[in-house]
Amino acid sequence: MNTNSKIGILGFGSFSRFIAPILAKYATVYIYTREQKYIDLVSELKSSGSPLYAGTGSDIAELDYFIFSVPLGALGDAAKLYSDKLSPNTVIIDVTSVKEKPLAILAEYYPKHQILGTHPIFGPQSGKSGIAGLPIVLCNVSVHTEKYQQIRQFLSDILKLTCIEQTPLEHDTEIAYVQGLSHFIGRALKQMNIQDYAIATQSYKQLLELVSLIGDDSFELYKTIQNGNERTAEVRKQFLETLASIEKSIQ
Amino acid sequence: MNTNSKIGILGFGSFSRFIAPILAKYATVYIYTREQKYIDLVSELKSSGSPLYAGTGSDIAELDYFIFSVPLGALGDAAKLYSDKLSPNTVIIDVTSVKEKPLAILAEYYPKHQILGTHPIFGPQSGKSGIAGLPIVLCNVSVHTEKYQQIRQFLSDILKLTCIEQTPLEHDTEIAYVQGLSHFIGRALKQMNIQDYAIATQSYKQLLELVSLIGDDSFELYKTIQNGNERTAEVRKQFLETLASIEKSIQ
Repeated sequence: MNTNSKIGILGFGSFSRFIAPILAKYATVYIYTREQKYIDLVSELKSSGSPLYAGTGSDIAELDYFIFSVPLGALGDAAKLYSDKLSPNTVIIDVTSVKEKPLAILAEYYPKHQILGTHPIFGPQSGKSGIAGLPIVLCNVSVHTEKYQQIRQFLSDILKLTCIEQTPLEHDTEIAYVQGLSHFIGRALKQMNIQDYAIATQSYKQLLELVSLIGDDSFELYKTIQNGNERTAEVRKQFLETLASIEKSIQ
Repeated sequence: MNTNSKIGILGFGSFSRFIAPILAKYATVYIYTREQKYIDLVSELKSSGSPLYAGTGSDIAELDYFIFSVPLGALGDAAKLYSDKLSPNTVIIDVTSVKEKPLAILAEYYPKHQILGTHPIFGPQSGKSGIAGLPIVLCNVSVHTEKYQQIRQFLSDILKLTCIEQTPLEHDTEIAYVQGLSHFIGRALKQMNIQDYAIATQSYKQLLELVSLIGDDSFELYKTIQNGNERTAEVRKQFLETLASIEKSIQ
């Protein structure tokens, strides 16, 4: 990755809006979106000096990297739609919160491309004071060694992210607890609208902090976390059964 | 409260063992317990220089303060047992995690005594680096103004605790969320034996911290928190129903 690199990002949801300006410091970034409100937003950002471009059809074949930044549920259609538009030299990257399913989809539509699965474990909320030190999981499917090292170096040395290499299976097994549980509990507490009190304990403050950390995440992200990974349903089930047995123990 | 004060503590569970040495810096402390292992423990502490005494029958009538530090489920029997032993001048204090029920029990057995309800919102775990700044709830039932101010001053100026004055109703309404929820969730996560991972998010770290904060609390304390206050069952029910509805939303 160098300053001449051209990066395309498909989708302009909250994660794309967060990383696009960061990447635009180091490369030329094209945003691909069909939603007029986002096309307008890209224009606004561009006019305020940010080197972001609303991608047109013609620039797409020249991209060095193409990031699918869409919900898992939309990835199949998107992958199909762009499969005959992207150059065979473009590295295909995904950023969804699970890894086995999306990488299987990309492998199906891009059997000859270099594919890199990533899970940036941060977003607008956790990265609001900067992303240095935050973790990103890398699952290299088929990116050539030298190219992969370039990307990894950019992420760790320039963006200062903590790179964690995992297989899709390792990632999905651990993330079922890490995000599956915390988002399940946080979403419930947010819906209950739990309040801060003068008598809040340290324990309770962890719950308040949990709500503030994940409170604004989209329902799409929530669905990807929970439904994109079969192991997560099992973890939620285990949590609900454990709560039920604890409930029974004090009757 | 002054250095000539005599404080009796009934029960020598983890909370008593934690506060007794602290109080013994400022007053003479007598421990009342029928369990031999605790009598032995008091003797050990005493021989190591801590001015704690295993209370006998004869010193009990001279106490300035008597702290019932027993689980809520044992308070009725204990209150009854000591009702004809304590001097009318002894201030009766309770330290349970709920306030309406225990204060009703003490009012029944000590109608002519001065009674002070407290909830020290800390314990051996949260107070392991010192108790300065930690909260204690005070529900003054019938302690005379001057005496009450002395106690409050000791807690805030000497022990540096943050005193919060509440009615038993206010306390129990808020604590149903603060402790009811956090201990319910924390106990379940502890039972699931959730692990730390390199990919742990900030949100997930709140859950790990919750487990470490309440992990060693006794089942007796848990039962007092959950069953000692009718509102807590309602909060747990609300949490379980919210989880169920969120679960349904992604099916």
